[in-house]
Amino acid sequence: MKKLEDIVSLCKRRGFIFPGSDVYGGMAGTWDFGPLGVSLKKKIMDAWWDYFVEKREDIYGIDAAILMNPKTWVASGHTTTFADPLVECKECKGRFRADKIANGVSESVTTEEFLNTHTKCPVCGQENWGPIRKFNMMFRTHVGAVLPEDNEENKELAEKSIAYLRPETAQGIFTNYKNVLDTLYPDLPFGLAQQGKAFRNEISPRDFILRDRECSQMEIEYFVNPETWEENFEIMRQMEHDFLENIIKLPQENIHELEVSAEDRAHYSKRTIDFMFDYPNGQEELMGLAYRTDFDLKNIEHESGKSMSYRDKITGESFIPHVIEPSIGVERLFLAILSTAYTEDEINGEKRIVLKLPENLAPFRFCVSPLLKNKPELVEKARTVYKALRQKYRNVTWDDSGNIGKRYRKQDEIGTPKCIVIDFDTLKDDTVTVRDRDTTKQIRTKIDEL
Amino acid sequence: MKKLEDIVSLCKRRGFIFPGSDVYGGMAGTWDFGPLGVSLKKKIMDAWWDYFVEKREDIYGIDAAILMNPKTWVASGHTTTFADPLVECKECKGRFRADKIANGVSESVTTEEFLNTHTKCPVCGQENWGPIRKFNMMFRTHVGAVLPEDNEENKELAEKSIAYLRPETAQGIFTNYKNVLDTLYPDLPFGLAQQGKAFRNEISPRDFILRDRECSQMEIEYFVNPETWEENFEIMRQMEHDFLENIIKLPQENIHELEVSAEDRAHYSKRTIDFMFDYPNGQEELMGLAYRTDFDLKNIEHESGKSMSYRDKITGESFIPHVIEPSIGVERLFLAILSTAYTEDEINGEKRIVLKLPENLAPFRFCVSPLLKNKPELVEKARTVYKALRQKYRNVTWDDSGNIGKRYRKQDEIGTPKCIVIDFDTLKDDTVTVRDRDTTKQIRTKIDEL
Repeated sequence: MKKLEDIVSLCKRRGFIFPGSDVYGGMAGTWDFGPLGVSLKKKIMDAWWDYFVEKREDIYGIDAAILMNPKTWVASGHTTTFADPLVECKECKGRFRADKIANGVSESVTTEEFLNTHTKCPVCGQENWGPIRKFNMMFRTHVGAVLPEDNEENKELAEKSIAYLRPETAQGIFTNYKNVLDTLYPDLPFGLAQQGKAFRNEISPRDFILRDRECSQMEIEYFVNPETWEENFEIMRQMEHDFLENIIKLPQENIHELEVSAEDRAHYSKRTIDFMFDYPNGQEELMGLAYRTDFDLKNIEHESGKSMSYRDKITGESFIPHVIEPSIGVERLFLAILSTAYTEDEINGEKRIVLKLPENLAPFRFCVSPLLKNKPELVEKARTVYKALRQKYRNVTWDDSGNIGKRYRKQDEIGTPKCIVIDFDTLKDDTVTVRDRDTTKQIRTKIDEL
Repeated sequence: MKKLEDIVSLCKRRGFIFPGSDVYGGMAGTWDFGPLGVSLKKKIMDAWWDYFVEKREDIYGIDAAILMNPKTWVASGHTTTFADPLVECKECKGRFRADKIANGVSESVTTEEFLNTHTKCPVCGQENWGPIRKFNMMFRTHVGAVLPEDNEENKELAEKSIAYLRPETAQGIFTNYKNVLDTLYPDLPFGLAQQGKAFRNEISPRDFILRDRECSQMEIEYFVNPETWEENFEIMRQMEHDFLENIIKLPQENIHELEVSAEDRAHYSKRTIDFMFDYPNGQEELMGLAYRTDFDLKNIEHESGKSMSYRDKITGESFIPHVIEPSIGVERLFLAILSTAYTEDEINGEKRIVLKLPENLAPFRFCVSPLLKNKPELVEKARTVYKALRQKYRNVTWDDSGNIGKRYRKQDEIGTPKCIVIDFDTLKDDTVTVRDRDTTKQIRTKIDEL
């Protein structure tokens, strides 16, 4: 059985992911990617960009600012609806998400409903609650020359300067839809894709990188003629499966489509499929595919007073396009990949941990080693092989620490598919040992044939 | 003479860069990258990552969170020193950076010094000023379950929850130095590299993307034995020149080293070189190279109580490494590239605008076109050529809009080095016209030889 804590531990031990601000005792809900984590994260993001943007003629990139005009969040509904029910224990002053600590209540729980559940404070055990308050999960800040004391002294200025860290990348796309229409004149259907940070002030961040306060999203808004939404929804659904199964190589049997019911869907959506993944701690959303109708463009039109109409070049017909949105969190995909790759097995009676990462995602493709590090002729030969491979593939690592067994165990843990070892025979006949990560089998091959 | 406003205009017209939140009337100091801008920005960032991280054995990647434990900014000095002098006009309530509107005063101007300059308000023309106040440029926010009303009702909770958007990526590296030491056991000298957003609440953002509130930085902290700082500083200086001149292809004569004097250097630096670039609106900093000594690691040690010592594996000697920091802003580099590429010339009596981008940075390498768009046999043949090239190079575009002259002008403006045109001869002998962006010369070549 794979356990989340084993993966968290491996991530820290090998430099994939560290707790954010670790040296200062942390910063809840943030995580820092170490050298190997950056490498894997970049490969994931590059693979997505290549598949959905570079390879396609109809999807273009966008990279919008994180700080946006606050009207954005009025139009999108976040100012009023992006909120969790917060409740405070009057005894210990602890604050909690009411729907997470009380049984059988929803996010829209009222104070009365909550009190009726007779929930005890998870910290002090008392039952003395304040009212339910709506806690908006957007991070607030002030943009411009506003001093902290202005919050009291000069309320008007302070109010006017409020801005938020974007809670989703999607709105950075919608607000640029018209810019793209006016510069590229694309025909429907076309998509705009963005990768970037999004921020959610979770009351209780948890589950490692699954529910963090700062995450990286990869989103596409695919603009279509409303009459064709169903077929385009289906095309996107197939593309997502293809990407997850054939590029990222997640096992098909661990991905489950969840058709979200009308009452559980976001208010703007007429159809949503959640792609659920079997994580070590249970099924969790990996990505979402939503039919957002013309909800966003209509609201932008209303809030900005500018037309969001698209004019068909052939029929001359004008209308507001509808939108299909595939949305995926990089960290969720990262953890799905690690959960799939993480394996504990036994080879010749010896237990080991091995990350069976696909070759296109592994931080290093090869590790080059001299059999013995105190033999200069071996080291020199190994360096030559290493440099030639690195020139060709970039992601090649060097390891001459400890003994060869220890190096194999380390490379197994970081998911390096092949270890190449230079020994005394190499000096004679230019052959090397190539050791396979998954089978641990070793074969002898000519250097030229690597 | 190249003018900044012509470049800004081209950026908007062709979808490189749009004003942030444009549809809502903007958000001062923010900019959104459109489809072509994303492409160029990614190529710049990838080229940097390849040159400084992938190609090297001694520099590793880091990707830290934007929200960091506030102790970070106490240790780094930002909480107290990252501030501009703010002055308010009592008549019109306008707020300004005192050192920008008064002549001959520095950032450390006092109220008395400022009043002595008898500066008039740039907005209302009056001379009725409030005191100089220190305005900290870090964006403040609250992390955790803090409601806006807590700022008054529950000050203690509000205070305790204050966090900042990082004003530089550097501290995300320094705070992970020990994590890397404990997982990778690297030998000195080694570097940690990071690309990511940084935020500065400029009182008056200006000069397009040169002084924005949200920017992308690319920084390396190169940890060295203090005895070797001079040679490592020199190595980094050479590398920066090599990168700017040979990878990014900026003209050497437009880059000027400015040795920053002791009084102008940041408090932590013992030597700083600013790499200045000739932008259309004058010389401005393109990047910086600073010897930061052990300032940051020592402060982290002090603030965290954890040892930042490095132990030399051979000599056994323990010490805190010193740091050489090359730091570059993506937007500054982006604008240097565009300024260099932007050209107005005259070809056969016809004026044109052309972006002479290096081939490795141009959003598209080739544009494929049928000579006439209403001839299905030409379009079909052109599509075949287009698809084959795109399969091979990815960054290939298709253009069948307007007439061929118009297409050339468009591709010139977005910097596409070669236009490939399919005409009736192509159908006969599989040759195409290849038109060169810079010379506008056309040659005839076999499709196979493209």
